[in-house]
Amino acid sequence: MGLFSKDIKTLNDLFVHTLRDIYYAEKQIVKSLPEMIEKASDPGLKRGFKTHLDETQNHVARLEEVFRMHGAEAKGIDCPAIDGIIEEADDVAGEVGDKSVMDAALIAAAQAVEHYEMTRYGSLIAWAKQLGRNDCAAVLQRTLDEEKATDKKLTQMAESAVNMRAAS
Amino acid sequence: MGLFSKDIKTLNDLFVHTLRDIYYAEKQIVKSLPEMIEKASDPGLKRGFKTHLDETQNHVARLEEVFRMHGAEAKGIDCPAIDGIIEEADDVAGEVGDKSVMDAALIAAAQAVEHYEMTRYGSLIAWAKQLGRNDCAAVLQRTLDEEKATDKKLTQMAESAVNMRAAS
Repeated sequence: MGLFSKDIKTLNDLFVHTLRDIYYAEKQIVKSLPEMIEKASDPGLKRGFKTHLDETQNHVARLEEVFRMHGAEAKGIDCPAIDGIIEEADDVAGEVGDKSVMDAALIAAAQAVEHYEMTRYGSLIAWAKQLGRNDCAAVLQRTLDEEKATDKKLTQMAESAVNMRAAS
Repeated sequence: MGLFSKDIKTLNDLFVHTLRDIYYAEKQIVKSLPEMIEKASDPGLKRGFKTHLDETQNHVARLEEVFRMHGAEAKGIDCPAIDGIIEEADDVAGEVGDKSVMDAALIAAAQAVEHYEMTRYGSLIAWAKQLGRNDCAAVLQRTLDEEKATDKKLTQMAESAVNMRAAS
């Protein structure tokens, strides 16, 4: 998409643009999760991040399926939002000097990522339905359900053991 | 917070750091909402953004109250996440060449902002409770409830009139 080129003329253009945005984002998340697994101390959190890495790889494949279904080229476009969220996670992690506090910071960072994905998939699903692409909406919904489930598990961890240890 | 200085040693340090992150973010949102009000065409969306600007100014004041209650200096720190989310919103808006599609893009951008705030307030509330600061948690909860209500209203708009016009 060129600068000042007003390339987004229809809701379909916006849908494809946003698919490419989240496609890039999911790939960045695949790249950043191994470092989060490495940094986590709590065994449950480490395991949760590993499961989420598998899921995220599946989300990338699912987006490629949606691109195929919709007849659009599967390619990523820069997504300053996810870059900023990951940069902030790295900055904070670089400043933490305690294992339990690091786990609390990692959970918060992962939840920021999840919420970004949830909002983008939510918009994509609403637009797919309005474009008459209920088939694409159904595939995207499966990913959204998984992101919501991951966020819920992270909230449970944030409210229980991991943070209690950080506070002690 | 200095580079490589490991300044976050306790959950309390992480709590104050994240308060400063969202304090900066809320102030950036106050700065960016007038442009979104300007760009919106749908009268309901325009009105919604105006209401949210008032609410956001109130969220800034509420954060200052929490800083006071907790005995921490009210100051913002760089938040690459919100900067990236706003930069992405500006990029997309710059590429949209149709009023109804612009409204759909603005709703999605506002929801990305809301979700970022929801996740940060969620973490802050969990940590405040673990730090024995239920008083701070209660103040932060009022803002979280408002962010959630705004997101819900935006979802309703995304699923109804505004996007239907963009698809037509």
